[in-house]
Amino acid sequence: MKHTLTWIVGPTDDPHRIPSKFVPATVPGAVQLDWARAYGWPQTEYDPDLSKYAWMEDAFWLYRATLDWLPPAGQRVFFVCQGVDYRCEVRLEGRALHAQEGMFTPIELDITDLAPIGATLEVLVFPAPKSHDAPADRTQANQSCKPAVAYGWDFHPRLIPLGIWDDAYLEARPATHIRAAELTYALSDDFSRADLALDVALSQMPDAGMRLRWQIVAPNGEVVHEQLVTPDAAMIRLRHEAHQPALWWPHDHGDQPLYTSLIELWAADGEAIDRRQARFGFRRVRLVTHPTQWQEIAPYDFPKGRHTSPITLEVNGWRIFARGTNWVTPSLFPGALAEAHYREQLALVKAAHMNIVRCWGGANVQKEAFFDLCDELGIMVWQEFPLACNRYEGTPAYLRVLDQESRAIIRRVRRHPSLALWCGGNELFNDWSRMTDQDLALRLLDRNCYDLDPHTPFLMTSPAMGMVHGGYFFRNPKSVEVYQYFAESRATAYTEFGVPALADVEVLRQIIPAEELWPPRPGTQWETRHAFRAWMPDSWLDLPTLEDYFGPIADLESLVACAQWLQSEGLKTIYEEARRQKPTCAMALCWVLNEPWPTAANNSLISWPTRPKPALHAVAQACRPVLASARIPKFSWRAGENLSVQLFMLNDSPDPLVPGYVDVWLETEAGRLTIGDWRFEGGAANENIAGPTLDVILPAMQAARFTLGLDVVGKPEWSSRYELLFRRA
Amino acid sequence: MKHTLTWIVGPTDDPHRIPSKFVPATVPGAVQLDWARAYGWPQTEYDPDLSKYAWMEDAFWLYRATLDWLPPAGQRVFFVCQGVDYRCEVRLEGRALHAQEGMFTPIELDITDLAPIGATLEVLVFPAPKSHDAPADRTQANQSCKPAVAYGWDFHPRLIPLGIWDDAYLEARPATHIRAAELTYALSDDFSRADLALDVALSQMPDAGMRLRWQIVAPNGEVVHEQLVTPDAAMIRLRHEAHQPALWWPHDHGDQPLYTSLIELWAADGEAIDRRQARFGFRRVRLVTHPTQWQEIAPYDFPKGRHTSPITLEVNGWRIFARGTNWVTPSLFPGALAEAHYREQLALVKAAHMNIVRCWGGANVQKEAFFDLCDELGIMVWQEFPLACNRYEGTPAYLRVLDQESRAIIRRVRRHPSLALWCGGNELFNDWSRMTDQDLALRLLDRNCYDLDPHTPFLMTSPAMGMVHGGYFFRNPKSVEVYQYFAESRATAYTEFGVPALADVEVLRQIIPAEELWPPRPGTQWETRHAFRAWMPDSWLDLPTLEDYFGPIADLESLVACAQWLQSEGLKTIYEEARRQKPTCAMALCWVLNEPWPTAANNSLISWPTRPKPALHAVAQACRPVLASARIPKFSWRAGENLSVQLFMLNDSPDPLVPGYVDVWLETEAGRLTIGDWRFEGGAANENIAGPTLDVILPAMQAARFTLGLDVVGKPEWSSRYELLFRRA
Repeated sequence: MKHTLTWIVGPTDDPHRIPSKFVPATVPGAVQLDWARAYGWPQTEYDPDLSKYAWMEDAFWLYRATLDWLPPAGQRVFFVCQGVDYRCEVRLEGRALHAQEGMFTPIELDITDLAPIGATLEVLVFPAPKSHDAPADRTQANQSCKPAVAYGWDFHPRLIPLGIWDDAYLEARPATHIRAAELTYALSDDFSRADLALDVALSQMPDAGMRLRWQIVAPNGEVVHEQLVTPDAAMIRLRHEAHQPALWWPHDHGDQPLYTSLIELWAADGEAIDRRQARFGFRRVRLVTHPTQWQEIAPYDFPKGRHTSPITLEVNGWRIFARGTNWVTPSLFPGALAEAHYREQLALVKAAHMNIVRCWGGANVQKEAFFDLCDELGIMVWQEFPLACNRYEGTPAYLRVLDQESRAIIRRVRRHPSLALWCGGNELFNDWSRMTDQDLALRLLDRNCYDLDPHTPFLMTSPAMGMVHGGYFFRNPKSVEVYQYFAESRATAYTEFGVPALADVEVLRQIIPAEELWPPRPGTQWETRHAFRAWMPDSWLDLPTLEDYFGPIADLESLVACAQWLQSEGLKTIYEEARRQKPTCAMALCWVLNEPWPTAANNSLISWPTRPKPALHAVAQACRPVLASARIPKFSWRAGENLSVQLFMLNDSPDPLVPGYVDVWLETEAGRLTIGDWRFEGGAANENIAGPTLDVILPAMQAARFTLGLDVVGKPEWSSRYELLFRRA
Repeated sequence: MKHTLTWIVGPTDDPHRIPSKFVPATVPGAVQLDWARAYGWPQTEYDPDLSKYAWMEDAFWLYRATLDWLPPAGQRVFFVCQGVDYRCEVRLEGRALHAQEGMFTPIELDITDLAPIGATLEVLVFPAPKSHDAPADRTQANQSCKPAVAYGWDFHPRLIPLGIWDDAYLEARPATHIRAAELTYALSDDFSRADLALDVALSQMPDAGMRLRWQIVAPNGEVVHEQLVTPDAAMIRLRHEAHQPALWWPHDHGDQPLYTSLIELWAADGEAIDRRQARFGFRRVRLVTHPTQWQEIAPYDFPKGRHTSPITLEVNGWRIFARGTNWVTPSLFPGALAEAHYREQLALVKAAHMNIVRCWGGANVQKEAFFDLCDELGIMVWQEFPLACNRYEGTPAYLRVLDQESRAIIRRVRRHPSLALWCGGNELFNDWSRMTDQDLALRLLDRNCYDLDPHTPFLMTSPAMGMVHGGYFFRNPKSVEVYQYFAESRATAYTEFGVPALADVEVLRQIIPAEELWPPRPGTQWETRHAFRAWMPDSWLDLPTLEDYFGPIADLESLVACAQWLQSEGLKTIYEEARRQKPTCAMALCWVLNEPWPTAANNSLISWPTRPKPALHAVAQACRPVLASARIPKFSWRAGENLSVQLFMLNDSPDPLVPGYVDVWLETEAGRLTIGDWRFEGGAANENIAGPTLDVILPAMQAARFTLGLDVVGKPEWSSRYELLFRRA
């Protein structure tokens, strides 16, 4: 039985001094939101000036609630808090009960004997952790498990949330209750058997006559296993051998059968006095080496290095091309996120034919609702620990917190069948981070994953050997387009790549004052909203590139359309090129799905909160399990040039490809021009077919845009379109 | 107090049947040696036909001894065995006391109450582990911790030793005694302080009045710390903070101060009833990234991968170029090795200016005497676990043994300051092994090293990313010489490379019957002794290459001289080229120092048992801490060709290079021809200097050999010579 408390919160400079001012607190939430609400500030996401929040990161914040509840007679009362961001002390009647650093480790305190009705419960939240005062950037997070993104990123303003960010409540429990019930399983090689183990921890030695009942409920609601045992110790391992378990699959490969494990503690009279239940699924995920690896090595060709790190996902024995996206935090305030936010965005992910999200290490590990939804929707999760783009030195103090936090994360998330991959963090082996395989922090994470979840793959960082991140431009600084530089790349996985675009005009009108709207200029809200100098001078509104392609652009609507065109075609090209490189390449994950506040421009597919840019539709086209695809040499064309198109049928589906026929054509304002056709033989399940290269001399045209079409006869759902630029000048 | 037993040993097909025949056993040793001795077989290493040993690998072997000793009154008696190769059961009066798989886990059994005088103690050794019957090769070792080399290798005949391979004895101990005393320490960043911890495990709760005395004795014999405590538990951690500890260095960088930790258990009356002592040293080893890493990466140059794995050794904060060699097993029978064998070979290593040996994972982990000597001599040790060139699948049974064995290895070796690096095993990420970073066996090893010895670097395998192995030819299969293919390579470490040579004529006469000696032919003892078809058809006597360079060769002496010339010049070239590539390159370790039996030809620098080939001298020249070095385009020259020589001063020493002057000349039968000179400025400690390239048109000459000389004026110890081939045809 749970009871919710009513909280107030206030800031103080001195942890031993009561705040002079309290405001009502929403729990879960963030102190910044409470303060802004109380003072009538504009909604944070639309506030043109976030500097008013700056002082908050350095204050102590005291949450306070009055204990206004008595548990049923004979029960004990616990204060339970799933997460305090970031460092805290829990006090009862002014006395410190518990101190903790780290937002992912739940707190459970038995306060029965300490808490008379009317007593004051407090949670003191410490200032945001900083390893140094200057520079005031992400490097301040390099000795903590506080997600680094909030210290400022190219898509995130500096605003460091603090506070009780996950559920907090009082809970009544019998004296003997279930402290934990953790389910693990191992699948046999042929998937015909699962050996389950349920580790039950009771709060104390059970009374005589107490029993534990373990039920496993199948997806159809049927109880497929039931076991009644008399526990003779406080820690008990129950075992069960399940036969022919239904396997969980990513949505593009099968169903998502979810089982429930239910453990009840029965008193001697048979009354169920406590219970725990958890949903889970059966799946085996491995990272395997791409099958072309060995063909590339000539025998006796020395000196010889090692092969690349395996990055091909194999689920239930089946190689699966990972089509997906990076996921950052969808809000400046992780504590404000609820199931509905996750549901809306994950529905878009699934609708875009994506089967994986990479939960990037710069942001926080999402709440349980996120993983529950991924389980249901058949979306795999690549989960990183909270390390990103920093050198996290393995000092004893840091390792201690990382150990505690990573164990809490692993123990919470490992039951989810959607979990496909643990990763130490983002870009830790690049020159801006300079960590290495020898770093104790990463060896610790590998150790903890091995100890607690050995059968889920672990990567120290992305990119690992053979993988790449970037680019983040339609054209790179050498003016080479994505069409070329991805075709020339040979990576095992593209786990970040992006093309920036402006937000829709309506979004821009919400965040940029009318007088600054046109033309976009640095030093205005355009810059505040990351159109300029967010990374490079022209990030993320690349005016020079836009004007180079499109000439002088007349108005905001045209500018938005041009930028979104580049993003749509650029991302489509990259996804399809990565897929054409299968099986050497095994992943294409764009940077990035979402953003935590409305930017004027960045690489996201969705403007905050959940407004798709046109590129999301383009990506959905490129991520269809089966499609006709064209390798196109470039974006911008002139009359008389030879447009040379190599054809492919891309097939990531578990079904063989039936034979078919592709019509290839150009469409201009003058009508449709047939280029040629390709009659393709069938192909194996999950295998692409490469087709011929067709050439056409480009005719002169009036419009600045033309369409290349690939029509799969009788299969319009496999047909593709590419929108290219025609230049008269 | 220890007592040595007298053993006999005999084979049996059935572990429950007593052998029909016993022979006297030498312990430590191997059953094969005992059997051969008893039957008067030829010395194994010179036996032309090892097929007589074949049956032994599949037999059970029963060691038997009679307990002929009573411990002093009141003491308990233990049977202690440091290692049984490979799986065993210990029996007393026919009753099984203990069963174990794994040669590295010591056995200690309290047999006081079970062992009347005259009782029979037996050690049953199981047949050699094999994961399958065919093929009968190294892959049979892929599910055990048995070193794979004995299953047959290009330098090792198939002969799988079995038996008690390390010390075994009875030991009297008081009821309360020291079960273990394990010392660990952490050095402060500036090396001014060491925090020591001694974990003492007593056999039981100490009696009232018992005390523990801990002494630390400095290298000069002075007791620098003494501590007397009254233990109140069976497990006690003692701590000590040492100030300004003397640091252990590789021999080319400093001294090897060795401390001793001595713990005594005192009875209430002050009598020392038990003691443990261990020698140790203070050093901090890290693997760091080579400093040129970051210069190679252009900003915004996407897509971007990760940097290479760090492989530059940093000892006590000082980067040290690793000049060394691979170390296999110096005997077919690891149990027959003793301190003297190690001492002789390690003295050669040190004299060759090498500062590291890589103890290759195909062979076994050496006995303690080896590490003690390396500690004393200042030779760093790269220690691999017993995995090599196989796919060691992470089955539960295998992981259980690997866990136990790796923990035993780590706990034994970690105290040695010479230990520089743990490594999972040899060439596990190559196409003949096909393991990956995801393999549970390697994650387990990383976990155990992290848990038990976190401050010593850990590599999953060699080569890691950026590193290379090979080649193993003077010319590769594309007929490119080592002069070119190493100059074109850009590796972070060359951790295996070799050039084969014949053994000396005297060795050949010992192992090849006179009638087969000339000419060398496949199908004779030349092949048995690995001159042909040991790897490629012409391994390791590459007649086609020799005849291509030298024409028809008249006799054995000339053949040996030619092969040894190629090995000497080839290895010198590779070592020097690797050093010229510093700091990008950080290691040069040749394949291989030693061999376990006399081969006719292979890559070793030493013929069994300890007979240096001329290449050892050449390598010693190339490994001098400071030398003048020439990058030479090729080995074989004709009159009129332009010999173009790039000059370097190589400096791996901790001292700055003083300015100097190099004279460069050719010497032919006609006398000395000056090519030019180079006056070099001084250089920093541990840094090379690149010099000019000098050219000379090669004159005609009569001899088939000429010398290129680099004389450092006033520093003859830095001067270098290269012996090159002149071809008249």
